[in-house]
Amino acid sequence: MTRELRLGIAGLGTVGTGVVKIIRSKAALLSARTGTEIRITAVCARDKSKDRGVNLTGYAWEDDPVTLARRDDVDVFVELMGGADGPAKVATEAALKAGKDVVTANKAMLAMHGQNLAEQAESGGRLIRFEAAVAGGIPVIKALTEGLAGNEITRVIGVMNGSCNYILTRMESAGLTYEEVFAEADGLGYLEADPQLDVGGIDAAHKLAILSSIAFGTQVDFSGIELEGIERVSIEDIRHAADMGFKIKLLGVAQITGRGLEQRMMPCLVPDTSALGQLDGGTNMVVLEGDEVGQIVLRGAGAGMGPTASAVLSDICDIARDVRLPTFGQPANTLKKTSPARSVLPAPYYLRMALMDKPGALAKIATLLGNAGVSIDRMRQYGHSDQTAPVLIVTHKTTRTALDEALAAMDGTDVLASVPVALRIESV
Amino acid sequence: MTRELRLGIAGLGTVGTGVVKIIRSKAALLSARTGTEIRITAVCARDKSKDRGVNLTGYAWEDDPVTLARRDDVDVFVELMGGADGPAKVATEAALKAGKDVVTANKAMLAMHGQNLAEQAESGGRLIRFEAAVAGGIPVIKALTEGLAGNEITRVIGVMNGSCNYILTRMESAGLTYEEVFAEADGLGYLEADPQLDVGGIDAAHKLAILSSIAFGTQVDFSGIELEGIERVSIEDIRHAADMGFKIKLLGVAQITGRGLEQRMMPCLVPDTSALGQLDGGTNMVVLEGDEVGQIVLRGAGAGMGPTASAVLSDICDIARDVRLPTFGQPANTLKKTSPARSVLPAPYYLRMALMDKPGALAKIATLLGNAGVSIDRMRQYGHSDQTAPVLIVTHKTTRTALDEALAAMDGTDVLASVPVALRIESV
Repeated sequence: MTRELRLGIAGLGTVGTGVVKIIRSKAALLSARTGTEIRITAVCARDKSKDRGVNLTGYAWEDDPVTLARRDDVDVFVELMGGADGPAKVATEAALKAGKDVVTANKAMLAMHGQNLAEQAESGGRLIRFEAAVAGGIPVIKALTEGLAGNEITRVIGVMNGSCNYILTRMESAGLTYEEVFAEADGLGYLEADPQLDVGGIDAAHKLAILSSIAFGTQVDFSGIELEGIERVSIEDIRHAADMGFKIKLLGVAQITGRGLEQRMMPCLVPDTSALGQLDGGTNMVVLEGDEVGQIVLRGAGAGMGPTASAVLSDICDIARDVRLPTFGQPANTLKKTSPARSVLPAPYYLRMALMDKPGALAKIATLLGNAGVSIDRMRQYGHSDQTAPVLIVTHKTTRTALDEALAAMDGTDVLASVPVALRIESV
Repeated sequence: MTRELRLGIAGLGTVGTGVVKIIRSKAALLSARTGTEIRITAVCARDKSKDRGVNLTGYAWEDDPVTLARRDDVDVFVELMGGADGPAKVATEAALKAGKDVVTANKAMLAMHGQNLAEQAESGGRLIRFEAAVAGGIPVIKALTEGLAGNEITRVIGVMNGSCNYILTRMESAGLTYEEVFAEADGLGYLEADPQLDVGGIDAAHKLAILSSIAFGTQVDFSGIELEGIERVSIEDIRHAADMGFKIKLLGVAQITGRGLEQRMMPCLVPDTSALGQLDGGTNMVVLEGDEVGQIVLRGAGAGMGPTASAVLSDICDIARDVRLPTFGQPANTLKKTSPARSVLPAPYYLRMALMDKPGALAKIATLLGNAGVSIDRMRQYGHSDQTAPVLIVTHKTTRTALDEALAAMDGTDVLASVPVALRIESV
């Protein structure tokens, strides 16, 4: 055994510490599996004095990740600092420039700068690997890039933010409001320092942008994602959706349409008997659909020290085994620049309205939907004690444009007490 | 683009034809993804004149797979003939000897001769790849070998034979006997030419043997598998299990114990709310458990032209991308030879008995269980119209040895009308 792979690890938070622990405790296993001695030569973090529960004395310490990235005794720069810009990006670029391969868990950086970084890496014959950036421990990047390489990918769907799924699941099981569960989750440390990254759907959208690029051979396009968080999901809608046989999930969907790449990250209804519908708590699930393979469902922990470090190690082992693929599965300079398509694909919708209790009100709504070409599959009007009646409608498949036309027409009437809730129903 | 990879395909049944179709229809996509022109130079099958719905005129035809395997214009020998021995093995060995890489879907050959073939391949610097051999289109070999490379694998569980799962699911949903559904499935062409490969659990056990080797770094040991098919699963047991909150599945389980490698392929009970319990019809599911990653669940089509060909293409693309790993994830000469452990690990059991309707009968059974150290978690005695009463028992965790002791003692009494049914309950 003479081969060795020397790592410089920047960032010693939960994931970085987890990676150090695995490399220390599984040296023999990793060496048997890769034929390579994987060892850490240098580390870097903000605070040298902090006790991280792991022995760092054998490693050189750097205060500056750029200096770490350029060290002669580092073959692979392991970027676990996070953040789309700032030190993570600067150090990644420095590492590539210095001829190092890069392993990162940084979904924000890849979603915002993936194309440029991939081009830089590939022009110098270097790698950027990022299994840990999407769905934690689930080897979904590998499944998509390599496992389904013989497929035209037809759709990618997923629940990719465990915190949001925890909140939505907990709202339903405990009958609590969004605000109540948000406060609870925040108190338990389940949310990012900036919770908007979670509940605003941004973190999950970063992941979707990365998966889309690999799935469809397109340049990462975060800004092309139709994005809506879970802040406006109400316990009423969760209950009513359940009553109609659905669960509400923060669902990422990517699909090629005749008008470009459609990417959505928004609360959607899915059948409660589906694998996605049954996904409770903080777990992640990604569904990959290919023209040959049909539907592949992958489920596992989307975050946490062990699962995320496991994914980082998968990339490190691949490099140790001399697996060298382009960043997004095909050369960056062949990735197509697509125009974003926004809700081009038709779908059934769930509508909830507070109808004024006056004669002809329901007829008016039904007429306006019909005028816009939206037909009704199911409707329920619930008993009520005040002047407004809760009405639920499940439409047949329609375009978002037609639905918006109907909703705009309703806005001009006096039969609704508030703006209707409209949620897409995704067939899964 | 100057690189090319030349394939010789032996076997043009469903899978072989599917592979040819993908390579013909997706040339541009495969080339973009691999940077390599993947092309077929020669094919081989039993009957040249048969119309397979795909144009073969551009390829050289060989009648003998060994001749195909040795052709100078073949880089990769794609073995899709099947069968543990015979032409598949002879041609695979010839290919390796001639310096070719091998892609195969042949689970039987790998389960029986995997160690020898891997040693032969690796001594010559060649590859044997076999994603299609286990769980069809699900990239489970890749997930285990590469995706979870940073984990000690703690357990592998799976439903790996779609036909058996179809039969068990259909028995429950239609209320039919095993014999009735077997005849139905056979008539629909759902079963292997030798149905015993399916219903006897042999096909699934081949897959388990392969997964075990990768998961635990051990030599493939098919003969060490405790094997029982689904032929004796009765509609009564399916109904009674459902009544207790369980489903019966043909479940493969592999786990390292203090006494060696435990591999089981047998009908087991799993909670009906678990992912495995909810797996209906012909789909496959493999659950991989690692010390870092926790539980990863993979679900997809376990058979069929598209899914299986997709897996074959995954291997071909990896070779085109110059991914070169040892056959079972680590060098064959480092794989440990383990002794098989048979049901060492304790578990709860489901027992169904036909109790003679006489005073003290139930007390006697309970006493004999207690004497053997088997304690009862739940028990139900059902109403009855004849001289025997159906009794169901769910035990607490016990060893198979203790249970067998109790069952042997019962055999010596006159309180049972027939041999009790005992099925392991696997926690998933």
